[in-house]
Amino acid sequence: MTQAPSHLPSRTIFFISDGTGITAETLGHSLLTQFEGVRLKMVRIPFVNSTDKARECLERLKEATILDGARPIVFSTLIDRDLNRILSEANVLCLNFFDTFIVPLEAELGVKSTHTIGRTHGSIDTNDYKQRIEAINYTLSHDDGVTNQGLEQADVILVGVSRCGKTPTSLYLAMQFGVKAANFPLIPEDFERMKMPDSLVKHREKLFGLTIQPERLNQIRSERRPNSKYASLENCRYEVKEAEKMMRQHDIRWLDSSTKSIEEISTTIMQEVKLERLSF
Amino acid sequence: MTQAPSHLPSRTIFFISDGTGITAETLGHSLLTQFEGVRLKMVRIPFVNSTDKARECLERLKEATILDGARPIVFSTLIDRDLNRILSEANVLCLNFFDTFIVPLEAELGVKSTHTIGRTHGSIDTNDYKQRIEAINYTLSHDDGVTNQGLEQADVILVGVSRCGKTPTSLYLAMQFGVKAANFPLIPEDFERMKMPDSLVKHREKLFGLTIQPERLNQIRSERRPNSKYASLENCRYEVKEAEKMMRQHDIRWLDSSTKSIEEISTTIMQEVKLERLSF
Repeated sequence: MTQAPSHLPSRTIFFISDGTGITAETLGHSLLTQFEGVRLKMVRIPFVNSTDKARECLERLKEATILDGARPIVFSTLIDRDLNRILSEANVLCLNFFDTFIVPLEAELGVKSTHTIGRTHGSIDTNDYKQRIEAINYTLSHDDGVTNQGLEQADVILVGVSRCGKTPTSLYLAMQFGVKAANFPLIPEDFERMKMPDSLVKHREKLFGLTIQPERLNQIRSERRPNSKYASLENCRYEVKEAEKMMRQHDIRWLDSSTKSIEEISTTIMQEVKLERLSF
Repeated sequence: MTQAPSHLPSRTIFFISDGTGITAETLGHSLLTQFEGVRLKMVRIPFVNSTDKARECLERLKEATILDGARPIVFSTLIDRDLNRILSEANVLCLNFFDTFIVPLEAELGVKSTHTIGRTHGSIDTNDYKQRIEAINYTLSHDDGVTNQGLEQADVILVGVSRCGKTPTSLYLAMQFGVKAANFPLIPEDFERMKMPDSLVKHREKLFGLTIQPERLNQIRSERRPNSKYASLENCRYEVKEAEKMMRQHDIRWLDSSTKSIEEISTTIMQEVKLERLSF
């Protein structure tokens, strides 16, 4: 999407919202990944919640049109009719996610929408939100095997060799889904003992393993500790082989993180461990 | 959206995707927050990337229809035409985010879309993705003032009293925007010295303050350490007052986190510190 030759004209993409604009940006960005050979400049304008801010926005749309010599594309989640009316003075392609879908939803649910600004992330006084913050705190204090305490509260416990992706995945699970995710490294001492720590084995039903291709692990570890035994391909091969053997031995579900994004790994874990999203 | 009386019939909402389904879920959920007095049950079905999986999906749609006595609502980002054709055999209200917007985008950009499955979160081999993982690692190792080392690499440094929301905000900034966010607590010793640590002052242009209403801080701290001096309303009032004085004195931008979600706080910081999103 961005590797187009630089002699092509560039188009400006605006993500406009009365809230954070993160929803507009996420959906807009994933739509745009479907187009190649176009040069795009992306601008997010959040918190457009007054006529003054809408007028400022309008000016920026007009400026971009002049600068690019082409009208901008706007992805919007603006709800308020007056603010939308102001923006409609600009010559743009406006894709408003709310306008487009609210009408069929109203018809289907037989209920009028409340047209309330900024409800996407909900109120921070809900249990939902508290649960999410609690999950983040839990996950941070149960990162990298720092403690065996309180593992009975975990929704899932990730295991795997050092640097296979446990920490970012745990944090994403907590942040996105409100899930309490502890994580424990499998270390050479475990392999020598040929035994997974007892503190983990007793939570077997909550364990989920991550593994990784030794070549990729070697690459990741080398960035941290170049030329160490820890990072050597030989050692990476040994650790990965032993960790996989151990997971098989304890009948632990696992996946290979080598070619997957944090989102994909986390979604697979939610599915496999049959976890419900606990917060939005 | 969920507080409807339980005698109302319930409707099942499906989020269906060939990828993680997170985009469909995020947008669908924010649309549904606009409706009150309806009972909804939400189901995410990710990785629908084969005809077999599409057929399984179709069965679940039919089952929900029978169980609810009403047709389900489907939010979909399915791209593949054959898979969409299979699902179209069910009697549902299907809102397909891709189908709806791809056509006007093709016309506007003058380019055909690639119709490629699962590109939303991009390839993990991109610099984008590496930057994001690096930001998460940086943020974790610069949480809660654990080190003064490497602050010159930070994109932003959050400061504020203990438990005002620095840690979840830093992690969100890293995870969502690929921004390296360090955070430092302002502690009673700083207030007694009436001086912000020198290691922070020299990065003043990157500092951003979070403050919080003393009553809310008291509530949050009491959950952790009930009946402590640390959590007492009197002490919370003192710390917040001193921290705000210090931020004013050093001319540091700040915001009150009391009534804002992590998303709102993070978006405001991105805007104020004029940070660009560094990854998707």
